[in-house]
Formats: sequence, C-alpha cells, structure tokens
Amino acid sequence: MQLESQAAEQELFISGVARELAGFLDSKRGLLSAISPDTVILLDSIRDLVTGGKRLRALMCYWGWRGAGGGEVSAEIVTAGAALELFQAAALIHDDIIDRSDMRRGGPSVHRQFSQLHQRHGWSLDGERFGHAAAILTGDLCLSFSEEVFASIGAPTAAGTRAREVFNLMRAEVMAGQYLDILEEVSGPHKPAGTAVQRAQSIIRYKSAKYSTEHPLVLGGALAGAPSQLLSGYSAFALPLGEAFQLRDDVLGVFGDPGTTGKPAGDDLREGKRTVLVGLTLAAAGEEEAQFVDERLGRQELSDDEIEQIRAVMIASGALAAAESLIENYSDIAYTALAALDIPAGPVVSLRALATAAVRRKS
Amino acid sequence: MQLESQAAEQELFISGVARELAGFLDSKRGLLSAISPDTVILLDSIRDLVTGGKRLRALMCYWGWRGAGGGEVSAEIVTAGAALELFQAAALIHDDIIDRSDMRRGGPSVHRQFSQLHQRHGWSLDGERFGHAAAILTGDLCLSFSEEVFASIGAPTAAGTRAREVFNLMRAEVMAGQYLDILEEVSGPHKPAGTAVQRAQSIIRYKSAKYSTEHPLVLGGALAGAPSQLLSGYSAFALPLGEAFQLRDDVLGVFGDPGTTGKPAGDDLREGKRTVLVGLTLAAAGEEEAQFVDERLGRQELSDDEIEQIRAVMIASGALAAAESLIENYSDIAYTALAALDIPAGPVVSLRALATAAVRRKS
Repeated sequence: MQLESQAAEQELFISGVARELAGFLDSKRGLLSAISPDTVILLDSIRDLVTGGKRLRALMCYWGWRGAGGGEVSAEIVTAGAALELFQAAALIHDDIIDRSDMRRGGPSVHRQFSQLHQRHGWSLDGERFGHAAAILTGDLCLSFSEEVFASIGAPTAAGTRAREVFNLMRAEVMAGQYLDILEEVSGPHKPAGTAVQRAQSIIRYKSAKYSTEHPLVLGGALAGAPSQLLSGYSAFALPLGEAFQLRDDVLGVFGDPGTTGKPAGDDLREGKRTVLVGLTLAAAGEEEAQFVDERLGRQELSDDEIEQIRAVMIASGALAAAESLIENYSDIAYTALAALDIPAGPVVSLRALATAAVRRKS
Repeated sequence: MQLESQAAEQELFISGVARELAGFLDSKRGLLSAISPDTVILLDSIRDLVTGGKRLRALMCYWGWRGAGGGEVSAEIVTAGAALELFQAAALIHDDIIDRSDMRRGGPSVHRQFSQLHQRHGWSLDGERFGHAAAILTGDLCLSFSEEVFASIGAPTAAGTRAREVFNLMRAEVMAGQYLDILEEVSGPHKPAGTAVQRAQSIIRYKSAKYSTEHPLVLGGALAGAPSQLLSGYSAFALPLGEAFQLRDDVLGVFGDPGTTGKPAGDDLREGKRTVLVGLTLAAAGEEEAQFVDERLGRQELSDDEIEQIRAVMIASGALAAAESLIENYSDIAYTALAALDIPAGPVVSLRALATAAVRRKS
C-alpha cells in the first residue's frame, strides 16, 4: 500500500520534471528561431535526450528533499530535477564524443545525428568533423541551460547556499573525474598494475558515483534545509550506492545485452576503458591471458570473437565474480546506512527501491 | 589628462580581474589535488588562457557599469569581469577544437597541449584523440567556473535580474551563432551565392558581435541598475562596434601577420570559414577566380602560394576594400551612437578608445 502511493508520488514528480523540461526548451524556441531556424535542431537534440532515461539523479534529489521534510512535488524540487537532467544530458553528449560512442539508448548519439544530417544533405567537407563540432556546441548549450534552470530556483540556490555549493562541486568533480578516466585509458598501461584497481575505483568515485547518487541526494536535502548531520548520513548511503551503480555499469559495458543496454556489445573494451573489472581481470588472470586482454583494450577493430575471449578470461579468472562481490559489498554498506537515516518511512522505502533498481539493472 | 586617469583606472580594474581569476583558480587547486594531482593540469590550462588577452569583454562590462553610475573598481564588477573572461576562455578552448586551430596567442592551443603531453610521456592509444577529449573537458570545467563566478556576485545576478537575463542570452546566442558558423562551412557552398554575405553577417552578429561587445556592455550597465533606455543606447553603440570588430577579425584571419596574430597565415581559409570577406569575394570576383577561391576553402593542405593567390583575388576584386568600407561604416554608426549616450565623459572617452583599438587592431 505504502509502496503504491510512493510510486504514484514519484510518477507525479517525474511527469512534473518532464513538463518543466519541455516547457523550458519550448521557451527557447523563439530565441533560436530568431537567430536562424537552422539552429532549432540543437533544441531538438537536447529534448530527445532528456525525454526518457532512468531519471536516477532527479529521483535521488527528490527523495533527499522529501526525506528532509520538503513538500510533495513542490515547484523548486521539480525545477532542481530538471536542472540535473539537463546536466546529465550535457555530460552524455560530450561523453559520447569523447568515447566515440555512436549509439545512445538504441538510437544515434548526438554527434552521429549531426553527421547523418550532413550526409543526408550531401554537404561539403567532412561530416564526422561537423558532427563532433555540432555536438560540442549542443553540449555547451545544454550545460548552460542546466545552470540557467538551476539558478531560476532563486533564493534556495543563490550564492553562498549549500545547494549552490553542492551544484558547483558536482560539476567540477564530474569533469575532473572524466579527465582521470581518459587519462587512465592512455597512461594506465604505463603505470603499476598493482594499483590499477585502486585507480579505477577513484575514477568511479568522481566521474560517476558522487555525481549519480550522492550529490543529487544531498542537493535535495540541502534545498529542503536539512541539517549537516542528515546530509552526512545521505552521503554515507549514496556514495557506496553510487560505487555499486557504476560497477554494475562496468559489468554491463562488457556483459550487457545490446538489445537492453542500447549500446553495441563490448563497447567499453573497444573504447579501452580501464575499469575496476578490467583491473581485477589483469590482476587475477594468468600472465598470458592478462597480456591478451591488455593488448586488445582500446582497439576499435576488436572482433566479436576477441570480445568473447576477453569475457571468458574475466569469468575464468574469477574477476567477474569479484566484481559482483564488490557490488554486493557496496550495496550492503549502502542499505545499512539507509536504515540508519532518521527520515520518514516513505522516502526510505523509495530510496531502497531506487537503490535496488540501480544495482540490479540490466541496462 | 583625463585619458591618463582613465587609463590608470582601467589598469586598476584589469589587475583586479587578474587577481580575482588567479584567486578563484587557486581556490580550486585543493579540490582538484584531492581528486588526483593529475587533474591540476586542467586548472593550469585555464590559468594560462585567462592570463593575458585583450580583456575586451571585461572592459566593455566595466565601462558599461561606470557609465551607469557604478563605483570605481567595485568588487562586483571585478567579479563580473572575471566571469566574462572565464566564459571567453571556455569558448576559445572549444572553438580551437572545432576549428582544429593548433595555435592560440603564439603557443599551442589547449587540445595541442594535451596531445603534446601524451607524446612527451609516450602514452598509449591516439594522442590527438586524447588531446581533443581533454580539451572538451577543460572547456566544460571552464564554462562551469564562469557561471560559478558569475553567480557568486549574489543578489545583482540572482534569478530574475536583468544581469542574469543578459548572461543567459549571451551564452545561448554564442553557441547558436557558432553552430551557424560551422553549418555555413559545410552547407554554404550548396546555398544561393547571392545571400552569402547576408548569411555571414548574421553569423558574425550572433557568434561574435553581440557577445564580444554588446552583451558585456549591457551586462555592466544592468549590474549598476541602468534604466532600459540607457541599455538600449548601449546596444545601439556596441552592436555595430561588434560587427566592425568581427569584420576586422575576418580580414586579419586572411591578411594578418602571423607574428602579430599568433596564428598561422591564412588559417581561416584552410578552416573554410565563409566570412563576409569571402562572401564579398565570391560575389565580386570573375567566375573563374570565384571558382578558384570556392574550391580551395576548407582544404587543410592549402599551400602558401594558393593562399597568396586567394589574397590577390580578394584585393583585385575589390572585396577587401569593400570589407574595409563596411568596417568604416559600422564604426561610424557606433561612434555616433556613443556620442548620443547620456553618460559621463570619462566612460565615453574610454569606450571610444576601446572601440578604436578593437577596429584598428593588428592581432
């Protein structure tokens, strides 16, 4: 019964965020049309990306707000949710350029949409370059929009507030964390193998865990005026949850079903991502197998057969099982911290459901 | 005498902005070091880029503020100047990736710095890709910083203020304008030649003119609480000035001295920029010459000899003279509008000096 009413409330919030996003983007249509009707496509790309998705960040923010006594589906928390979704969209657009990911949620990623536009029209010069350039600009616009929406909340996100601090911290940490991620791709093979797992865990923390779960939850709490102690409790729950969430992502990046993830199989391996799972594999596999995997990471032309062989090494070496066990451990720590929070039962139930979905997901 | 004291005041403001930028970036050093000492390089890249430069935007903002009765070198206007410089740095970082410009102010551009870092360390995988990815992230961080600094001004830039509106508008217009710019590179050759100059002028307006002069000036005025009428007067002066400024940029992009501009000769031609100067050339040159120019735009491997031939067509066809005459016309309109402003003599003198420098510059 309780779960049902929680789900209904959550649904109401989600549709509020969707309406807010659509309304905001519509409000920019006149401005962009006046510059040139050709620029409206930037808004369309952003709109497609913020339609759908798991809304994990917006939901963490919402239940952080509700746990700290914020009102049901209040205007400011809906707006904060919209700002987080726009930030996530901006990050995805640039991430897909960086990772050369041509697919996102089963469709073409933004830079691919633009290179396809180039191709359809038979335009001059290089279509791939055009696609990357247009996606860099779309991501920049989306990043600005995210901040514009966040600032529009007014006093609760003004200079000097805790919410503003969290928002600033979140952005700097994600960008620095993403840099660490690409740095590890190129420099990891030249660094001590013994600390690879540790480096991968640090990358996870900053590029994903803090930003996907901890910061949104704390932001919601801060907006509702939560005391520092509650915000620390939120962190104690959400940070290990975020680590489990990203470890699941790493596993799905190698073992996920393309039909469910919307991304080609083994994408992370072709990209050369040096994840915790990869670190565990290189440490646990025999020398020959480890070398086999190491040499193939980051090869764009990796065959399906090679991907299958890498998967086999990950399974046989026990690395996959070790990753699953890490996910289990982090989840346990998160659930224990959640149970210790002094917040109403409703938000606890919802946060537990979110946590389970984040860790057990197939996409 | 007046010019001297104005120059001293301007110098004081500029050094205030420099100190604010250095202080802000220093304040982020601890955060980034804690994530990983490897990420501090992102701050270094940003710091190098905001050190030096013409500070045109910060200065327009300052004199807009002073013209509207703002106090001498007050804290909020120094912070606004720093925010504008960070925004400009973010735009330059991404612009250089988009334009594949390997040089900026005589040194390597940010993406080149990172690909050189890759090379120096002999890291794995592709150094150019790493450079682009790292520069995308550095630009994103810088864009976030710009907004963080802007918001830190507090009440004068809070949600709903005119200053906030200008800041939001500026960002959206620049990004949409830059998109039009890259769109014209690829689609321009397929569009009616008769409207090429008009399209190029629209691009100039949004990607550069409004953002380099109009928005900063209006922002300064808005921060000082200027009435709408004065802000309209600011626009009437600064928009044509910005157009003249960008036309000068276009001319320098083809005819500039690399020793002074800090960029290779003919960079804009290799990039395929379809500027007003190019549009005028294609319209004024004979069919054969026009075709010669048209076919070479955007060719990375353009020889110095070909660049010299394109220059010759621009001169012989009268296109260069026409561009200079446009610069003259826009400047005249700007000076007339400046004279009509009801603001103290000091800011008028300073704005006139800035305008002259912007239009007559060699770099």
